[in-house]
Amino acid sequence: MRHNLRVNGARLLSRLDRLAEAGARPDGGVDRLALTEADKQGRDLVVGWMRSLGLEVAIDAIGNVVGVRRGRDEGAPVMMGSHIDTVRTGGRYDGALGVLAGLEVIESLAEAGVVTRRPLAVAFFTNEEGARFQPDMFGSLVYTGALPLDQALAAVGVDGAVAGEELKRIGYAGAAPVSRPNVHAYVELHVEQGPTLEAEGYEIGAVEGVQGISWTELTLTGQSNHAGTTPMRMRRDAAYVAAEIVAFARRLANEIGGDQVATVGALTLTPNLVNVVAERAVMTVDLRNTDNARLKEAERRLHAFASQIAAAEQVTAHSRELARFDPVPFAPHLVERVERIARELDLTVKRLPSGAGHDAQMLAAVCPACMIFVPSAGGVSHNVEEYTAPEQCAAGADVLLRLVTELAE
Amino acid sequence: MRHNLRVNGARLLSRLDRLAEAGARPDGGVDRLALTEADKQGRDLVVGWMRSLGLEVAIDAIGNVVGVRRGRDEGAPVMMGSHIDTVRTGGRYDGALGVLAGLEVIESLAEAGVVTRRPLAVAFFTNEEGARFQPDMFGSLVYTGALPLDQALAAVGVDGAVAGEELKRIGYAGAAPVSRPNVHAYVELHVEQGPTLEAEGYEIGAVEGVQGISWTELTLTGQSNHAGTTPMRMRRDAAYVAAEIVAFARRLANEIGGDQVATVGALTLTPNLVNVVAERAVMTVDLRNTDNARLKEAERRLHAFASQIAAAEQVTAHSRELARFDPVPFAPHLVERVERIARELDLTVKRLPSGAGHDAQMLAAVCPACMIFVPSAGGVSHNVEEYTAPEQCAAGADVLLRLVTELAE
Repeated sequence: MRHNLRVNGARLLSRLDRLAEAGARPDGGVDRLALTEADKQGRDLVVGWMRSLGLEVAIDAIGNVVGVRRGRDEGAPVMMGSHIDTVRTGGRYDGALGVLAGLEVIESLAEAGVVTRRPLAVAFFTNEEGARFQPDMFGSLVYTGALPLDQALAAVGVDGAVAGEELKRIGYAGAAPVSRPNVHAYVELHVEQGPTLEAEGYEIGAVEGVQGISWTELTLTGQSNHAGTTPMRMRRDAAYVAAEIVAFARRLANEIGGDQVATVGALTLTPNLVNVVAERAVMTVDLRNTDNARLKEAERRLHAFASQIAAAEQVTAHSRELARFDPVPFAPHLVERVERIARELDLTVKRLPSGAGHDAQMLAAVCPACMIFVPSAGGVSHNVEEYTAPEQCAAGADVLLRLVTELAE
Repeated sequence: MRHNLRVNGARLLSRLDRLAEAGARPDGGVDRLALTEADKQGRDLVVGWMRSLGLEVAIDAIGNVVGVRRGRDEGAPVMMGSHIDTVRTGGRYDGALGVLAGLEVIESLAEAGVVTRRPLAVAFFTNEEGARFQPDMFGSLVYTGALPLDQALAAVGVDGAVAGEELKRIGYAGAAPVSRPNVHAYVELHVEQGPTLEAEGYEIGAVEGVQGISWTELTLTGQSNHAGTTPMRMRRDAAYVAAEIVAFARRLANEIGGDQVATVGALTLTPNLVNVVAERAVMTVDLRNTDNARLKEAERRLHAFASQIAAAEQVTAHSRELARFDPVPFAPHLVERVERIARELDLTVKRLPSGAGHDAQMLAAVCPACMIFVPSAGGVSHNVEEYTAPEQCAAGADVLLRLVTELAE
């Protein structure tokens, strides 16, 4: 079925505005941590819209909500979705855009009298951000069978609250079974949360996959010494070794190239005094790549360099893995469709990886999945200043609308 | 006058042991912060010894204590000395050795019936460490006219106490005038507080001078960004710039060579999170050299590099001078005497700079001054583990004895 439908951008924006009132911060941002009172308000609002649109709403035992619009045939739905929880100093687009654009797609189709062959679904998953409960994305992890329900329900929040009790308190401990779901395809519209699309002038990102993540903590132990009386050749300077590793991480990313990134965001010296050679440095290295072989190469080279530079300074290096996730490639035929549809809609489009984690990477384990990115102003995210222009939101929703109607025929 | 006198090493050690009881810590170290009750106990002990040895004791308005033994002639004395205050986790040698070796020299001469032509003096200066009051070395600063008395008396300690009030409380606000002193020469025996003598197998250090010190604080401000979604080429990473400066400081010290040292001991990142590109890095750079021209060259090259690497990363660099002291050369003829006397005593001797500050650098402004170093085990100092072997302490005192008797003839 071909059609030239476009979404109603004003209606989409209006829903974004109204959802942003749940957990609104005085500074214009949103504080809607998972399973808080603000989250309950947001959930009630979205579930109300789902019911107004005639969707059959199912809530499962970890609070994931799926609203289904029947198709001409029975069977697995084409699912749109994302999350509505935020970090404590969040914005109104991260997560919410993908969910509300799903509702807008449904409403646009309904207005045009279009009923797809396959059912359509709009979902939002619990605790994507992980800002209150660990692990992050436990809603979609449980939904796809990658995490036992009991484990997620027992998660203790940063405030000491238990996820299972909070679910009951806000009325979202649902009855729908948690079992390996039956989904035909999953499409998630999301803000990029990075600067690439804006900086390079693209309107749509066709997301090729989610980068694999490797987090390593290095503890470097040398000897604390007097900065005046200790000749350079006799030093065992943990700060110097740490600095060479930071500089190496930059060279490593540039040499491997592609979408490889490397970041040392945390570095703490002991005793951290102006006139004392540092005895200890504790640092983290965050490596990401969509290609697991290259990610492993980056890890190997990082460890080799750290061992070598530490030994040269007579500093001991202890390494600890903080996190390790393999890359998740999205279904190539869906990524191609995003590109094609964007061009058909006269939108500029660029293939790129997602550097952040998303529910779509969990869904990719159970069905063909992909993501559509729209630009984030200044690349700013997880910040009250987060912004995506109205026409950019609408453009993303237009791509979503066309993609899901294609997939549902 | 030539003699073959040697000090009584056991007596020197016995005094070191007894002084270490004033402010003794349970871990074997010494906590004798300036003008505390422990400092009063230590002062009373040393003044008692001075009086037992027949010295005329004068206490000035900032609590410096000078004990004088008359010579055959009137005139300016040859002064030995150091300090008896310690840091909070100090040892028993730093400062105390120079003062008690002075007493041992006096007692050895007295036993041998030797009266020098010029008077001899033993001094200890108030608050050398600066661990309680700023500036450090305010006793010798006031003694040599480099700091107004009022300013030192008004100094407020880390515990809120006022120096002038503490001096009165412990009975060491003396009557001796504070004016430009009349000293023929000043010799300070001290532990090296660095590893060089021990590591290279020398018994005596002939100290050429005190290194000039340049402390700079650099504040680097970039942009905080998502470690996954921000391509390397779009980063403004304050941590990366800081790391390149740390690595440069090491290269700089090696390239300038000689006794140039460079240390980044303090570095703090903001927000200091594993997955966020650092927005800000605040770091210190400690540069030292005995040659002021080379020290200035080091400063110039450091600033040039910091500006260049910051600009390349679009990070702003703000520089603040935390401290700047010119090098202090000791009197060359005294340094030569230390070398010669050590050799005459069959002791191995090495010329080296002092990387730490000492009262001798203040005295050098008013008379020929020099220092004798003895080894510090492992280069450890300002630490309860501080250690110099008994025979090393005695060897240093033997050099002191011969040098001051030469200078006093």
